[in-house]
Amino acid sequence: MQVIVLDSSNFHLFQPLLYQVATAGLSPADIASPIRHILRRQKNADVQLKTVTGVDTAKNEVIAGVERIPFDFLVVATGARHSYFGHEQWEKNAPGLKSISDATKIRRNILLAFERAELEGDEKKRQALLTFVIVGGGPTGVELAGAIAELSQTALAKEFRHVDPRTAKVIVIEAGPRVLASFPEKLSHKALGALSSLGVDVRTGSRVTHVDFDGVWLGENQILSKNVIWAAGVIASPAGQWLQTKNDGAGRVIVSPDLSIPGHRNIYVIGDTACVVINGKPLPGVSPVAMQEGRYVARLIKMKTAGEDSSKPFFYKDKGNLATVGRKFAVADLGFVKLSGFVAWVAWLLVHIYFLIGFQNRILVLIQWAWAYLTFQRGARLIVSDKDILDVE
Amino acid sequence: MQVIVLDSSNFHLFQPLLYQVATAGLSPADIASPIRHILRRQKNADVQLKTVTGVDTAKNEVIAGVERIPFDFLVVATGARHSYFGHEQWEKNAPGLKSISDATKIRRNILLAFERAELEGDEKKRQALLTFVIVGGGPTGVELAGAIAELSQTALAKEFRHVDPRTAKVIVIEAGPRVLASFPEKLSHKALGALSSLGVDVRTGSRVTHVDFDGVWLGENQILSKNVIWAAGVIASPAGQWLQTKNDGAGRVIVSPDLSIPGHRNIYVIGDTACVVINGKPLPGVSPVAMQEGRYVARLIKMKTAGEDSSKPFFYKDKGNLATVGRKFAVADLGFVKLSGFVAWVAWLLVHIYFLIGFQNRILVLIQWAWAYLTFQRGARLIVSDKDILDVE
Repeated sequence: MQVIVLDSSNFHLFQPLLYQVATAGLSPADIASPIRHILRRQKNADVQLKTVTGVDTAKNEVIAGVERIPFDFLVVATGARHSYFGHEQWEKNAPGLKSISDATKIRRNILLAFERAELEGDEKKRQALLTFVIVGGGPTGVELAGAIAELSQTALAKEFRHVDPRTAKVIVIEAGPRVLASFPEKLSHKALGALSSLGVDVRTGSRVTHVDFDGVWLGENQILSKNVIWAAGVIASPAGQWLQTKNDGAGRVIVSPDLSIPGHRNIYVIGDTACVVINGKPLPGVSPVAMQEGRYVARLIKMKTAGEDSSKPFFYKDKGNLATVGRKFAVADLGFVKLSGFVAWVAWLLVHIYFLIGFQNRILVLIQWAWAYLTFQRGARLIVSDKDILDVE
Repeated sequence: MQVIVLDSSNFHLFQPLLYQVATAGLSPADIASPIRHILRRQKNADVQLKTVTGVDTAKNEVIAGVERIPFDFLVVATGARHSYFGHEQWEKNAPGLKSISDATKIRRNILLAFERAELEGDEKKRQALLTFVIVGGGPTGVELAGAIAELSQTALAKEFRHVDPRTAKVIVIEAGPRVLASFPEKLSHKALGALSSLGVDVRTGSRVTHVDFDGVWLGENQILSKNVIWAAGVIASPAGQWLQTKNDGAGRVIVSPDLSIPGHRNIYVIGDTACVVINGKPLPGVSPVAMQEGRYVARLIKMKTAGEDSSKPFFYKDKGNLATVGRKFAVADLGFVKLSGFVAWVAWLLVHIYFLIGFQNRILVLIQWAWAYLTFQRGARLIVSDKDILDVE
């Protein structure tokens, strides 16, 4: 069997820790491993750096620009991007966090805000620079808010001379009634408490109606902010359009119980690109779902190529849900037990180190966490850009 | 006393290890520390992220765009950029290595070359992709050549399916008669031997006469290469123009024996921006010179503000010279003793870890070196860009 892996970037990214790159805790390389390095011992795996632009489902060919790559089986796992629910023009002033360059851009914005505030004489402008608005109270929003609050309260606290970073405001805007809506209500409240104790202002039941250069509007109320981060919604990659098949409202392809698309039992869609409905409810776009889907499809293709067939539908085993707030608090819903606080944070840490790829990365991340835990410092406070940083707006 | 530190970037960069970022061995944050973090305990130090555009020597003011910052004493330490000796149009196809973005750009070019070679059917084009030309056989050129050769010979060797990275050619072009001209002849020969054993093709007495999209020309001979790196010459930052004072051919300001400029005993120039002539010879542009100059000027200003004056001229104590080839060979000229091989490499390692700023950075770098030493692997093989990487040429 010949396996071709097509990707437009050369590395596999460990998404769950991306917010730590965005908040200067880790370096990009710590959470990314070259795909061909991961697959180096699998001799039948051929990794190709190519941007897929379409799929010809009639001819069983993947389209990459002018090139066509024939397949017997196709697995589409192209992930998701952030969605602005029809207001794509908001992206410029409210970037989302899905890629390494998103993360270094947000890191640059956050660190530049403090640098600019230090030089700003006008009190109102200074306050807008030091106001961080995070739109969305899901795991990404909560983790970003906790990390930014901690950055301003501790790591940066004593390093400025004209401004006190501890006066920075971190505001989470959540349209629903509580943060971490996918967790049990009790854990949502625990997380809210942890955010509040870091000084984060959580505004539930609030909907962003407009975003511009000056900040966000919640109906009639404006929040002046030079740093808005979008963590409110995702939309699947354009795979649904490639495959010309039905998708849910968020662009996710509605798949059959064996994760294939209707009419094409050799084309599978998994991860954030797929909408898998089990017991009437779509599975959430989290990494355990994607990993289990990947293993299921791999086994299925292996059976099919061996001439066997399986009618066993995909089944998701929910092993739990984790989210962290700051450097030593987390909530963990493990089904049989619900944890919060330091114990949950240790569980969070162990799970993330376990799933991080590469032994060296695990060591490097552990050391940086230990260092941050002991000293409150962040090791990757770099303002970098391909362009001159002071030209970047 | 009030000290204002003006810099257009927010971090201090440890230049001697920049080539390791360019060759995927280290992450940018490992060799960069935020300036305000370094100076956090020095309460009279005020760090400002600003781009200096000039100096008004008559009014004793630094000019940063529309702003003017008055001073009693000024220390100019603005470093150097690479110089193309009047052929600035070569830069596009032969980038140099002075900043973090230079390093991530060169890293991207190197890694992309292997990725493209893997997909290239045409043998001649493939060979051009896998030919790395380094112009200049000084420490930077030699260190880059060793690291790229090792990357292709070991780290990448078994991870490609259609191309053998070990067939990559690394060529060093040096106009002078030997590499590492600033070292004793015996050590130059040892370094040459180490480069040769890694398969590096060193061409001394060769001068690059033209660089374009297809490669480099040495008089009548063309070397087809998609990866030319410029390590041949530096030119000082425009400080000489700001100060309207005499400079040497490389733009370095010719300073008085106390490192001040003629006619302005309160304006000092140090580091790669200064041309300090001692015993008829200009000091080299290396970090020990810069560090000693910095300490000398600091002491001088301290004395002057205390009402004392010193007529003691700057004196450079040469403690030696180090350069490394690959992951376990170096040459060390310590004056009283000349070393090469593994022992010199250990000396190189200890000196670089000692001068690297930040305890966490030291630990992280040591671990990555230990890992590279034991496994031959590189941990930071990321192709990243602000733009879509496959659009980048």
